Amino acid sequence: VIVGVVRCGRTDRAMTPVQAGLNPDEEAVVEIRPEWVEALAGLADFSHVWLLTWLRASAEPPRAPTRQTPFLLQQQGREVGTFAMRGPSRPTPIGLSLVRVLAVARDAVRFAGVDMVDGTPVLDIKPYVPAFDRPAGEVRAGWYDEIELATASTPTSLGRTEGEGDADGPA
Amino acid sequence: VIVGVVRCGRTDRAMTPVQAGLNPDEEAVVEIRPEWVEALAGLADFSHVWLLTWLRASAEPPRAPTRQTPFLLQQQGREVGTFAMRGPSRPTPIGLSLVRVLAVARDAVRFAGVDMVDGTPVLDIKPYVPAFDRPAGEVRAGWYDEIELATASTPTSLGRTEGEGDADGPA
Repeated sequence: VIVGVVRCGRTDRAMTPVQAGLNPDEEAVVEIRPEWVEALAGLADFSHVWLLTWLRASAEPPRAPTRQTPFLLQQQGREVGTFAMRGPSRPTPIGLSLVRVLAVARDAVRFAGVDMVDGTPVLDIKPYVPAFDRPAGEVRAGWYDEIELATASTPTSLGRTEGEGDADGPA
Repeated sequence: VIVGVVRCGRTDRAMTPVQAGLNPDEEAVVEIRPEWVEALAGLADFSHVWLLTWLRASAEPPRAPTRQTPFLLQQQGREVGTFAMRGPSRPTPIGLSLVRVLAVARDAVRFAGVDMVDGTPVLDIKPYVPAFDRPAGEVRAGWYDEIELATASTPTSLGRTEGEGDADGPA
């Protein structure tokens, strides 16, 4: 079920930041469909929410690879398993973006943290709850711990060759 | 696309903890389907992963309510918008569980943090990456900030009346 659509200033996936956390200040809006407007009640009391988005453009192949080279490892040319990365080409192409809530209007949520293109369908909005979403104890993040994560990194800035792959945003 | 299935010791949703974060030590396994086994490469280097699960039992109504009373507010009898809560009855019934990785075998992931029943389909596994999944700055979590979150809370322990609602796990 599509509950809303993202309206933002990005249209080219290759030039869109790969993760909301790496582009935390850019603002955008989720326009909520009329039948889900009431579900926003109480959301303004949360500072952050998860947006679950639908990532697959209709032109893309239905079957994602089991191993691939993440944008962030493009320079190294290193492959990892699809479950060990956050790239958009996934078995179930659902993106998970942690964004900051700026304002909740009657039928829209203004937020900061853009890693999707204009028109991206939103499947669900979940409030960020520290007790559920913050790991207890030590965290190890595999290959992400070994690289530098530059703000506003995009597939293009990370060296993706034009036309290569079919990735289209974050996951 | 279903990439695997959870095998755990819970069968009754009413007696299953409402969130992995409130039941962090109970162990379970995701059995990965043969065609996705290769996608596990590198996952053992991560301490935590997100499991995206499919929450809807076939017997359930297709349309979730826009407002409802979360299990955690059952005693107070308070309603909130569906986007301001994590309960399982949602427009797109996808659960988001943060679990701790214990071991990655060839075709299975052993984890700690059970908030789903045996047989729950897994749609995706994403690694937890602090730079993407940890909010910067102050966090406000609405009504969750006002209540006490007891470990191992279940719908039943939280006072859900038997047979009421059709909720079936976390989201």
